Parts: sequence; C-alpha cells; structure tokens
Amino acid sequence: MTAPHPGKRVLQSYIDTINANDLEGLLGLFAEDVEWEDPYGSPVRKGREALREVYSPLIGSLNMTLDGPIRGSEGNRAAMAFSFEVEIDGKRFGATAIDVVSLNEAGLITHFQAYWSPGDLEEIAS
Amino acid sequence: MTAPHPGKRVLQSYIDTINANDLEGLLGLFAEDVEWEDPYGSPVRKGREALREVYSPLIGSLNMTLDGPIRGSEGNRAAMAFSFEVEIDGKRFGATAIDVVSLNEAGLITHFQAYWSPGDLEEIAS
Repeated sequence: MTAPHPGKRVLQSYIDTINANDLEGLLGLFAEDVEWEDPYGSPVRKGREALREVYSPLIGSLNMTLDGPIRGSEGNRAAMAFSFEVEIDGKRFGATAIDVVSLNEAGLITHFQAYWSPGDLEEIAS
Repeated sequence: MTAPHPGKRVLQSYIDTINANDLEGLLGLFAEDVEWEDPYGSPVRKGREALREVYSPLIGSLNMTLDGPIRGSEGNRAAMAFSFEVEIDGKRFGATAIDVVSLNEAGLITHFQAYWSPGDLEEIAS
C-alpha cells in the first residue's frame, strides 16, 4: 500500500490535535452526524456539536501517547491503543484505552468507540 | 474493582491458548453462536465450529505478543493491541492488530472483530 490508510491519518490527527490543545482542529475530524461512545456502554452522543461540550473541558488537561502503531483495517475502520493522562478536580489520573473509528468517504469519523473503564483510572503521584 | 474484568481474562486466555497451540481451549472461549470478523470488513463467520476451520491451520504457526495492557470496557466489551507472527507458504510474516470482543453473561465471546490489514504484513528475515 503506498498511500497511508485514511484511518491511520485521522487517528494520528486525533492525538495530535488533543495534545496541541486544538479544539477546532479536533472537532473538524468528525462527521457532522457522528455517533460517539466513550467509553463503550455509556450513552451514545450524536453530532459534532455535542462533542464540543465533551472535549472543551478536556482540552488543555488531556494528553495522549500512542502504545504502538495505529492499525488501519479493511472497511474504512482503524484502531489505536494509547495511554492518557487527564486532570480531575486538581489531581492527575492516567489510564490506557483503545479507540476504534469508522470513516465516511470524505475521511471524517462517523463512528467512534472507546474501550476502557473509568475504574481503571489511577492517580499519578505529582 | 477487585475481580478482574471478564473480558481481560478472556483475551489473555485467547493469547495464551494460541501460543500454547491449544485449539480446543481456544474454541472453548467462544459462544456457540459467535459472530467473528477478522479482519473487520471481511465476511463474518458464524458459529464456533466455523472457527475450527479458521484456527486449525494457524495453530502451531501463529504467535501473539501483547502490546500493553488489555483494556476492559463497560458493556461487557474488551480490547487488546498485539503483535503477531504467522507462517505463510513457508515464510514468516509479522503485523500488528487490535482485537475487540463482546461477552455474554457466561463470559464467552459473542462478537469478535479484528482491526488490521493483510497489506501490513511484513516478511520477517530468518
């Protein structure tokens, strides 16, 4: 394969925009009618604008590091494993997660599912 | 959480039985009516017995190594990132993938999806 898998490119941009505190760049990765479930099993949020509410308070506090290469799959899907840190009530917590996305033909994320459990968050000693 | 997430236990057993060439132990992790899609986007196989055909020729040649901890999610799902090696026509190839599973109440895999692309297989120099 010569061209990089579009899903690999989008997931790398997802991490890069979050780490760069680039909220508009981040939201621009999602299709307008995206269905977003993070973590899997929690209520599904629908639409790019609903995600502004989710990510706004996280931007600036959330940092992500890839655990190994992003996997691009058949059927316009891709997945990545990563570690993240986030601030909650003035304390820093860390956990690991796996995100899986589907893309539309324009290369925008139509489905987003995150696999992790809030019960796995561990406080990071400062 | 005191008890380990059932999905974490099952995915660890998935890797362990494959690496131990234990076909029956491996098949025993799946529900009888499992839906199995590997890689995502290829035809879905249905039923534990259909998986015997898939895994039989791989057992003995397939080896898997976890890339970081298994993620256990809400809603009885779990995901893991790993690297694998497999023999094809006498040559060894490697790639990375992410598997996502859903479990039923008995802790058996009802849905299995793998994210990777055969185009990412790279021959391993012997």
